[in-house]
Amino acid sequence: MKPRSSARARRVPPLGLSLDPSSSEPLHRQIGEQMRRAILDGRLKPGTRLPSSRVLAQDLDCARGTVVLAFDQLVAEGYVVSQAGSAMSVAANLPDEMLTVPRTGAPTQGKSVAKPAVARRTRALLAETPSPVPAGPPLAFPTGQPDREAFPFALWAKLLEREWRRPGIEAASAVHPFGHAGLREAIATYLGVARGFTCDPGSVVVTTGIRHGLSLFTQVVLDAGDQAWIEEPGFVGVREALANSGVDAVPVDIDESGFSPEAALAAAPDARLAIVAPAHHFPLGTVLSLQRRLELLSWAERTKGWIAEDDFDGEYRYSGRPLPPLRTLDRVGRVAYFSSFSKLLFPALRLSFLVLPLSLVEATGRIMDRVSVRAPLLGQGALARFIAEGHFATHLRRTRQLYAGRREALLKAAAQRLDGLLTVAPDPGGMHLIARPAAQVARRFDDVAVTAAAAAKGLTVQPLSVCYAGKVRRHGLILGYAGTPEAEIERALSKLRDVVLTAVTPSRRREAGRAR
Amino acid sequence: MKPRSSARARRVPPLGLSLDPSSSEPLHRQIGEQMRRAILDGRLKPGTRLPSSRVLAQDLDCARGTVVLAFDQLVAEGYVVSQAGSAMSVAANLPDEMLTVPRTGAPTQGKSVAKPAVARRTRALLAETPSPVPAGPPLAFPTGQPDREAFPFALWAKLLEREWRRPGIEAASAVHPFGHAGLREAIATYLGVARGFTCDPGSVVVTTGIRHGLSLFTQVVLDAGDQAWIEEPGFVGVREALANSGVDAVPVDIDESGFSPEAALAAAPDARLAIVAPAHHFPLGTVLSLQRRLELLSWAERTKGWIAEDDFDGEYRYSGRPLPPLRTLDRVGRVAYFSSFSKLLFPALRLSFLVLPLSLVEATGRIMDRVSVRAPLLGQGALARFIAEGHFATHLRRTRQLYAGRREALLKAAAQRLDGLLTVAPDPGGMHLIARPAAQVARRFDDVAVTAAAAAKGLTVQPLSVCYAGKVRRHGLILGYAGTPEAEIERALSKLRDVVLTAVTPSRRREAGRAR
Repeated sequence: MKPRSSARARRVPPLGLSLDPSSSEPLHRQIGEQMRRAILDGRLKPGTRLPSSRVLAQDLDCARGTVVLAFDQLVAEGYVVSQAGSAMSVAANLPDEMLTVPRTGAPTQGKSVAKPAVARRTRALLAETPSPVPAGPPLAFPTGQPDREAFPFALWAKLLEREWRRPGIEAASAVHPFGHAGLREAIATYLGVARGFTCDPGSVVVTTGIRHGLSLFTQVVLDAGDQAWIEEPGFVGVREALANSGVDAVPVDIDESGFSPEAALAAAPDARLAIVAPAHHFPLGTVLSLQRRLELLSWAERTKGWIAEDDFDGEYRYSGRPLPPLRTLDRVGRVAYFSSFSKLLFPALRLSFLVLPLSLVEATGRIMDRVSVRAPLLGQGALARFIAEGHFATHLRRTRQLYAGRREALLKAAAQRLDGLLTVAPDPGGMHLIARPAAQVARRFDDVAVTAAAAAKGLTVQPLSVCYAGKVRRHGLILGYAGTPEAEIERALSKLRDVVLTAVTPSRRREAGRAR
Repeated sequence: MKPRSSARARRVPPLGLSLDPSSSEPLHRQIGEQMRRAILDGRLKPGTRLPSSRVLAQDLDCARGTVVLAFDQLVAEGYVVSQAGSAMSVAANLPDEMLTVPRTGAPTQGKSVAKPAVARRTRALLAETPSPVPAGPPLAFPTGQPDREAFPFALWAKLLEREWRRPGIEAASAVHPFGHAGLREAIATYLGVARGFTCDPGSVVVTTGIRHGLSLFTQVVLDAGDQAWIEEPGFVGVREALANSGVDAVPVDIDESGFSPEAALAAAPDARLAIVAPAHHFPLGTVLSLQRRLELLSWAERTKGWIAEDDFDGEYRYSGRPLPPLRTLDRVGRVAYFSSFSKLLFPALRLSFLVLPLSLVEATGRIMDRVSVRAPLLGQGALARFIAEGHFATHLRRTRQLYAGRREALLKAAAQRLDGLLTVAPDPGGMHLIARPAAQVARRFDDVAVTAAAAAKGLTVQPLSVCYAGKVRRHGLILGYAGTPEAEIERALSKLRDVVLTAVTPSRRREAGRAR
């Protein structure tokens, strides 16, 4: 403070303010911030009378308007109250316990960081061993990961730019809960051409994923506590979607003809919904036989049950045409059809869709009015153009060839490198193969342990055992080849061989150690 | 069929196939499709022996390879089985009941369309009166709708194009569950500059909306059955988010100083979480007083409770600076901060964010590993550039001016046009004002009915009464002015005047009718 103000400083409490004219922070904010801190730290007690703006401006050698601006803000924030005759004082009603401990450091760096008092459900989660996260991009074999180079991003970027340059009113403001009208049209057309069934674009719902679609659909057709059959083993997301809608999942063992309606009815005669992947079961790759398809449809007709058909990788089949979806055989509207673009194009897209039976369109619209989760609109217009302009068909054709080559390469390399350890079955469709332990190592093979050991070596595989809702019947490794270049496959399998060898031989070493 | 094949036709069952060489459908698909239909319609009985491919090719006057291709597909699909000596027959195991009724028309157009056998919870929903949907774009006054013209879409389109031309590995494949790293950096920087608190970018979680963020946060900090205080009235989405995580919402009446911790403790002494909008309460616009802020923080410190601060329109304040968030006063890390870009930029963006207390970062990461809902990545990189390159700050400055003008225009027009009917309080912040019925009409004013009548005239208003979780204490209309051009405001208020006049006067007419 300057000497000339010292005489006045006796009449008002010393506020200890000091302004820095060279700071980028305006002077009135500096005053405000320093007074705020003085009040919160207890240096300026509640009720303390403050100097007038004129006096303070003289003290601080600044314009009176600057002080007035600062005081106005402090009054607006409640730190300061203005009294009769425009005198100001520190608010008297501030709780004492908040004004004693000085605030130091970043506010969130407090002592509670070490032991958070979170919910019991969160503590239980934290107590679990986290799944190992590989450092850097996976070498191989992430499940459901398409090739990263194959997608025409430059074209995609142009389509996005075209879509958003002058967006329609739909794009810029609220959108139909089922998604972008153009995209729903394009999907309906694509399904007619490529998957052999006609549907009303009005019955297409764009979702963020198959999980989202299933959770929505089960909310519409089932009540909490109702039963739904799921495939055992199967896609973990199905169980999660059912749990979300309060529906009981009844696992039904898959055999070589796929899901068995007979076994399902024996397990839960009153189930109201069957969730199946007829074209290509995940993860086993089984195709649902025609007989079973017709039995399942017959059950749905007879009992007014529902069928959710998950067709997410039905597009990839390397011998013959893709099998027609169950939905093409549905004559009374009991089948909802689910598919996803995220695995066909690129995962960050997060766009999937579901085709409702017409009878459920209105009810689903009502449900969606109530829930906030919608598919992101940003990419929907560009995706509509991508499909309508033929790029989607081209991309599928190209990736089919690419993945067919990778599948062959994986089968060949596996026969050479994994001989006697793992057997890879030649599933003719999909984006992954399953490696099962050979008989001589099966007893010591724990797929979760092998997965963790592989992750430590930069290999992303997925254990088959986690696909079981109930008792684990088989161990194995799911090897996604679609996102793994041929050149990497051999190297990755050599590493995998080492990992598996180490994993299945520790007991021998231990025995050797004991013998010594 | 050509005459020369008639002699052979006696030896094989007549399949009734007829090929159309001019069709764009390949011949083998035509054969396959017609045989499939014949089998499903019961014209070709299960077990029937089929002609050899050589014979059928002669019959149809096509290449034998074409028939072989068709048969292979039918075998793969299970319609046809190949027997000893390569003879083919219709599969014998197809269920009879599915092979009798001919399939006609579109499959989903069945009889069940009229009365869907949906879940009880869905039937209950369908029984409710749907909220009226105005035809065409709203004339005025949608809540939470920013101006449609103000956002620089051409620039946005360029940023999107730049981001996706050559996306990084992060963009094209899996992404951190909390969102795009660049965007989380940009948000942390923005908060430091504009909202006055520093935070670690690692504690920023990008979400699809405040509802999504709240639902996530409450899952981490509360168990099902725990209690949380919510503001009464308040944002409907808060109640929905709590219901999603199984948490009990305890409404606490708002007074002129905002949320009252004292009243809250009296209502539910064991609540673990307070959800408040300190800067600008929705919908009443109240600012939480400093005293209450400090009391609330003191409660959280003392009891290890949590505070969720909803700051979504804290950026819009037309007199003085925006008040600093509660989070700036948090010294031990009990406040999670929530905000949204969707209302500041454009609704279809669907990007919001939440800043976690550092102690919850790990637990939240674990929860997000388990749940599938993530914010859409597509716009996150572009938004990061939009913020980092200064466009966000420019946009806020521009829209602040624009909305200040609209607010003034609405207040002025309301004073003229709605005099004696509705009173509009001059809330100094936010994107909407509330019109309350004047004393003389309050008795006959039902805001839900007025909203429906207004919708029929193309006016989108929102009833205040739906913001109450418990007993409705006040009726009123929420008028969002941010998305309503000044030129439309007067016209819209004239219409609103007519709507309200009609709504509050029917009884007089009825009395007049009786008197006649």
